[in-house]
Amino acid sequence: MREFTTGDFAARMERAAKQAADAGLTGVLVTPGPDLVYFTGYMPVAITERITMLVLEPGKQPAMIVPVLERPDAESSPGAGALALSDWTDGSDPYAATAALLDPNGRYAISDSAWALHVLGLQGTLPGSGYVSMTSTLPMLRAVKDDDELERLAAAGAAADKSFEQILGVRFAGRPETEVAADLAGFLRANGHSEVDFTVVGSGPNGANPHHEIGERTIEEGDMVVLDFGGIKDGYGSDTTRTVHVGPEPSDEQRQVYDIVRAAQQTAFEAVRPGVACEEIDRAARKVISDAGYGEYFIHRVGHGIGLTTHEPPYMVEGEKHLLEPGMCFSIEPGIYLPGRFGVRIEDIVTVTADGGRRLNGTTHDLQLVS
Amino acid sequence: MREFTTGDFAARMERAAKQAADAGLTGVLVTPGPDLVYFTGYMPVAITERITMLVLEPGKQPAMIVPVLERPDAESSPGAGALALSDWTDGSDPYAATAALLDPNGRYAISDSAWALHVLGLQGTLPGSGYVSMTSTLPMLRAVKDDDELERLAAAGAAADKSFEQILGVRFAGRPETEVAADLAGFLRANGHSEVDFTVVGSGPNGANPHHEIGERTIEEGDMVVLDFGGIKDGYGSDTTRTVHVGPEPSDEQRQVYDIVRAAQQTAFEAVRPGVACEEIDRAARKVISDAGYGEYFIHRVGHGIGLTTHEPPYMVEGEKHLLEPGMCFSIEPGIYLPGRFGVRIEDIVTVTADGGRRLNGTTHDLQLVS
Repeated sequence: MREFTTGDFAARMERAAKQAADAGLTGVLVTPGPDLVYFTGYMPVAITERITMLVLEPGKQPAMIVPVLERPDAESSPGAGALALSDWTDGSDPYAATAALLDPNGRYAISDSAWALHVLGLQGTLPGSGYVSMTSTLPMLRAVKDDDELERLAAAGAAADKSFEQILGVRFAGRPETEVAADLAGFLRANGHSEVDFTVVGSGPNGANPHHEIGERTIEEGDMVVLDFGGIKDGYGSDTTRTVHVGPEPSDEQRQVYDIVRAAQQTAFEAVRPGVACEEIDRAARKVISDAGYGEYFIHRVGHGIGLTTHEPPYMVEGEKHLLEPGMCFSIEPGIYLPGRFGVRIEDIVTVTADGGRRLNGTTHDLQLVS
Repeated sequence: MREFTTGDFAARMERAAKQAADAGLTGVLVTPGPDLVYFTGYMPVAITERITMLVLEPGKQPAMIVPVLERPDAESSPGAGALALSDWTDGSDPYAATAALLDPNGRYAISDSAWALHVLGLQGTLPGSGYVSMTSTLPMLRAVKDDDELERLAAAGAAADKSFEQILGVRFAGRPETEVAADLAGFLRANGHSEVDFTVVGSGPNGANPHHEIGERTIEEGDMVVLDFGGIKDGYGSDTTRTVHVGPEPSDEQRQVYDIVRAAQQTAFEAVRPGVACEEIDRAARKVISDAGYGEYFIHRVGHGIGLTTHEPPYMVEGEKHLLEPGMCFSIEPGIYLPGRFGVRIEDIVTVTADGGRRLNGTTHDLQLVS
C-alpha cells in the first residue's frame, strides 16, 4: 500500500481551494478530524478547546496555526512540507492569532465538526467575515476517492467480510449480545482493524431499534439478529450489516421480511451509476419496501458515505440532489424494524464505477443460519 | 457509589437555566458530549452530523430533540424523565425542527464542542437569534463538583496513583516507549479505568516536547522519563504526571531542574484557596521557574479543570480572572522542557476546599529511580 506523500496532500489542498473559489467562497477552514487528516495527514493527539486550523485559499500557500506546544507534532506530519505553519501560546488570544490568517471580509467554508467555540470566536473577532458549513457548500470535497483510497476501502471491506464469516461459526443461542459483540470486535482487530467503531448485535426485539448497539439480552433460538459492524483499517472505514437467524427454521414472516430487505438492497444497488442523484438510491430501496407494505417500518435514510470516517457525505437521502460520480463510496443499507419483535437490515459498501456500482462487501445475501 | 438520579439531573438543568438568566441569556443549548452527560446522563452511540440538542430556559421544562432513530436510546437515559423529548426524521430539515424549540430572538450559550454545522444551521434558520460559547459566558457550569462527583474523581485519582506505583516496578532501560505506555494502559484498566485517554512516555529528548505521546525510541540508562497518564473511571477523569530517572545517578542538572519543578508545583498548590483568581495559580508556579532562570522553558499554562472529561474549565492560565470556589477540581502541572535534551513535569489533580486545596493524587514527589 503506497503511503500518501507531501505531493498528494498539496494536490488535495490546491483542489479544495479551487473548488472553494468555484463555489464563490474566499477559502476553506479545516479543523482537526477527518478533513485535516485528508488534507495534511495531521491529527493532534487530542481534539480539544485549543484551536488548530488550516486555511486554504486559491493562489496562496496553505497556512496552518497550531497551539505552540503541538507545533513539533504538526511539523512532523506528512503534509507539513506544503504548509506555512504558525502558532499561538496559552494566555494569548487564539482567535486574534487565527484571524490574522483570514480575509476580514472573507466568506469561508468550515469543517462541519469544527467546535462552535471556534466559529463563534472568529465571528466575534472578524465581524465582517462569514462562515458556512462544509456540508452545505462543499459536501463532496472528500467524496470522490482516488485509487489509493479505494484500495484501502476495499481492504477494510474484505476484513469486515472475513469477520462476518468467522462470526457465523460462534455460538449465538444462550449468550448475551455483549459476548457476540466482543467476538466480532476481536475478529475485526485480528483482521487488521486498528479501531472498532461499532459492533451492533440486535437480537429479537432489540433488532427493531436501528441504533440499538448491544445489551445484556440473552440471544434465543428463533431470533433474528442484526449484526452491523465496522471500524478503521489502515486509516479507512469498513461498515457492513448482515441479519442472521438463530436455529434452522425462520418463520414465514421472518423469511418474508428478509426477502423484502434483500430485494430493496439489490434494487438500490442496481440504481447506482454516474449521473444519478443520491436521493434516487434512497427512493429505489424505499419503493420496494413501501410496495411490500412495510414503508412505515423503514425509518432511516438508505445510506451514507464512507472514507476516512464511517459516516460522511454523500448521503443517500430524500432531498439530496447531488449526482453520483465515479469513485464515490457509500453504504446501501435498507431495513425493516417491527417494534417489539425483530428487525432486518442488509448493508454493503458500494463504489460508483464508470457504468454502474461495485460492492466492496462480498458476503452472501442468502439468509445465514447460526446456532 | 450512588447512581445519579433523574432528580439530580433535573436540579442541574434548573441551576443552569438560572445561571443563564443571571448572565443575561435566554437559555443554554447543550449538544452531545460531556455537557449532555452532565445534564441528562445521555450519550448517543456516536456523535455525528445528526443534530441532538437539549434546550434549557428558565421557567420552561427542559426540551431535547433527537434523530428519530436514536429516540429509544434517549428515552432510556436517566435524565429523560425530566425532559420533553421530540425528534426529527432523515430527509426533513433538522434546523427547522430544532428552531421550533427556540426563541427566534433569543440569545443562547451553546456547548463549546457543538458542531459548527449545527450552530451555522441555527444561525441561518433563525437570523434574529444569537449564540455565544459556553466557555465565554458560563464557563463554570460544570466546574464546581458535588460530593458524589468528588468521590468519583478521588477514586479515579487513586486508581491512577496505584498504576504509577505499579509502573515503577517494570523495566524501562532497553525498551521502547510504546511498551512502557502499553504497561501503563494495562495498569489503568486493571485499576478500573473504562477508558485510557493518554499514556505519555517521554524519554530523554522526547520529554522536552510536552505533547509528545509515545514513540519507538528505546529508553536508555540515564534518561529522565515523563509519564503523564489518565482516563475515565466510573465516568470521571484521572490525570497525573510523574517524571522518573532511569538508573541510580541523575546528573546534577537533572536533579536541579526536577527540584525547581517540584517547588513550583508545591508553591502553586499552596496558593489554592477560595477567592483566588485562577491566573494566580499559574503565576505562582511560573514565578518559581522564572526566578530559577528557566521561564522560557515552561511553555504551557499550569493547569486545566477535570471532571466528566480530562480537559475542561477552570483553566489555570494568565488572564483567567475567575475566582476559585470550593469543589472546583483541576490539574497543577508545571514543567521545564529543554529542547533536544529532557523534560520534567509533575502533575496532581487538586480540589478547592473551604480553606485551601486538597490533592487527589498522593504519590511521592521525591524523584523515583527506575531500572
